[in-house]
Amino acid sequence: MNQTNANAVGTWVDQILDQQKYNSPAAQASAYAPSNIALSKYWGKRETSFNLPVTGSLSISLAQHGTRTGLSVIDAPQHQVILNGVAIGASSCFAVKVCQWLDRVLPSDLKLRIDTYNTVPTAAGLASSASGFAALTLATNTLMGWQLPERQLSALARLGSGSASRSLWHGFAKWQVGELADGSDSIAFPLTQQWPQLRVGLLTISSQTKAVSSREGMARTIATSALYQQWPQQAQSNLATIEAAITDSDFQTMAATAEHNAMSMHATMAAAWPPLVYWQPESLIQMQKVWQLRQQGLPVYLTMDAGPNIKLLFEAQHQADVQAAFAEVQVISPFA
Amino acid sequence: MNQTNANAVGTWVDQILDQQKYNSPAAQASAYAPSNIALSKYWGKRETSFNLPVTGSLSISLAQHGTRTGLSVIDAPQHQVILNGVAIGASSCFAVKVCQWLDRVLPSDLKLRIDTYNTVPTAAGLASSASGFAALTLATNTLMGWQLPERQLSALARLGSGSASRSLWHGFAKWQVGELADGSDSIAFPLTQQWPQLRVGLLTISSQTKAVSSREGMARTIATSALYQQWPQQAQSNLATIEAAITDSDFQTMAATAEHNAMSMHATMAAAWPPLVYWQPESLIQMQKVWQLRQQGLPVYLTMDAGPNIKLLFEAQHQADVQAAFAEVQVISPFA
Repeated sequence: MNQTNANAVGTWVDQILDQQKYNSPAAQASAYAPSNIALSKYWGKRETSFNLPVTGSLSISLAQHGTRTGLSVIDAPQHQVILNGVAIGASSCFAVKVCQWLDRVLPSDLKLRIDTYNTVPTAAGLASSASGFAALTLATNTLMGWQLPERQLSALARLGSGSASRSLWHGFAKWQVGELADGSDSIAFPLTQQWPQLRVGLLTISSQTKAVSSREGMARTIATSALYQQWPQQAQSNLATIEAAITDSDFQTMAATAEHNAMSMHATMAAAWPPLVYWQPESLIQMQKVWQLRQQGLPVYLTMDAGPNIKLLFEAQHQADVQAAFAEVQVISPFA
Repeated sequence: MNQTNANAVGTWVDQILDQQKYNSPAAQASAYAPSNIALSKYWGKRETSFNLPVTGSLSISLAQHGTRTGLSVIDAPQHQVILNGVAIGASSCFAVKVCQWLDRVLPSDLKLRIDTYNTVPTAAGLASSASGFAALTLATNTLMGWQLPERQLSALARLGSGSASRSLWHGFAKWQVGELADGSDSIAFPLTQQWPQLRVGLLTISSQTKAVSSREGMARTIATSALYQQWPQQAQSNLATIEAAITDSDFQTMAATAEHNAMSMHATMAAAWPPLVYWQPESLIQMQKVWQLRQQGLPVYLTMDAGPNIKLLFEAQHQADVQAAFAEVQVISPFA
């Protein structure tokens, strides 16, 4: 983060943290946050230093698939980042982003060892940055004794990664777009609705780091995809439809709208220049299989984030059929 | 074609043909028309009975890849359609479309045997309907001794298939969108520019008939794809850019804009509901290969129509490199 951004952030982050920043930290703290997949996607920033979105979004958290992060105070010149047990060089993109976030919210002389364990592959479109920054935010809140309200934690998590704002809770979460220039109202909150029958199936096509990050993909899409101009309006409409369908437990409407939303997001990318296609041949095979199964009457839908992997949406009564069709599927019960 | 459409067509088709329709036909006639690929696509009708497009389009004809159609007058109760040497049942979609076209322009008591030979696979996204209806139009013009001007032949060919309006000539052709309700100004004409170095490479992924016709695909996209609302404006802009690049022999601009246009067209389909994805896994493999080669410095671009097949655009000096990378490519020299 450059100095200009740091100053800009000051306006509200400092308001939140000014009194609390200089608390004596505990020796260590840890927290868990689930990953989430958006049913109505976050795709496009209206402002980059705060990660302020063009539209609202709505997600379902992935229960035991997420990130556990442990923090401990160290006597060292810089933070130490350990990812899945492996020390990460300070110049790696992952470490840089984590350290930037810490430097935004901590006193400058406080250095931490950050032990972060993902139960989902890093940077493979499974939103490990969402659970990662959510867990980091929760752990920091504990370490520092901030006791901040959730709405402020959501805003802080968002500074690390937009979708992290939705990853502080289990179940459904809605990230409201917000109106204020400083982003202090662009925060997520959990929905009260439960949907015990809902299942998410993970089809991992690739767990390699993707060639184009979501951040870069969004920027390219906004800059070069004429079709993107239509996206905000569609996303707004999809979000309202999905939220209403959750209230009604209307699976068909919820899941079909989620798939339509995801396909349309990928369409905005394909129309970018140069074209941005996260799909791999294997993705297309699995997508076509989903569409065939649906034509045969099985109510299974798909969503995809900025990566090649596919997430299936279905209900408990069809789990056996889905597992028979997709031998490799990992089934998650978000409300179990 | 139903009766309502037939009456509507009457307004200008009858004006063109009224005097000529009842000429004594020759015993037989034949004509060849090349297939074409659009560099700026035709995707969406503003009116269906005349095949009037939402935007203009611009194509390059595929030289020896096209259709030869022979007509002969027969003494029979109905037309006989022979496709690539095989008699086609009168109820098949192909025969129905051909017979509808003939019944629109011929006296009702005149029945023909139509022998049509495609040098490109039928209905595999290689626009065999374009060359088919263009050849049929030219052959009918000769058989009936109409001697109609090309602009009227283009309009008649368009009644069979929109892209047929562009297939009467070799080289570049531009189909102007037109303004009149009866479509009499929605016609194509050849561009005078030659581009001897231009090459088109065909990568045939599948020659099977596609599950969703272009006609149906367009209709679904217009009805359900919010992103399509942005398409007309982009297509208009791409068309102007490509036409100017042809005048300047600016390959990079021409080919990059053609690829962007094609990808954006496919994007409007992916955002339709249910999603419309003509790509097959093998298409994606070849697309990624094109993008990789370009990153390595080889100026090769792609375009795709409503099907899984890929058409490469490059110039003669890179033909050896393209053929080395794509062993199966069929190279066409449109101006040879």
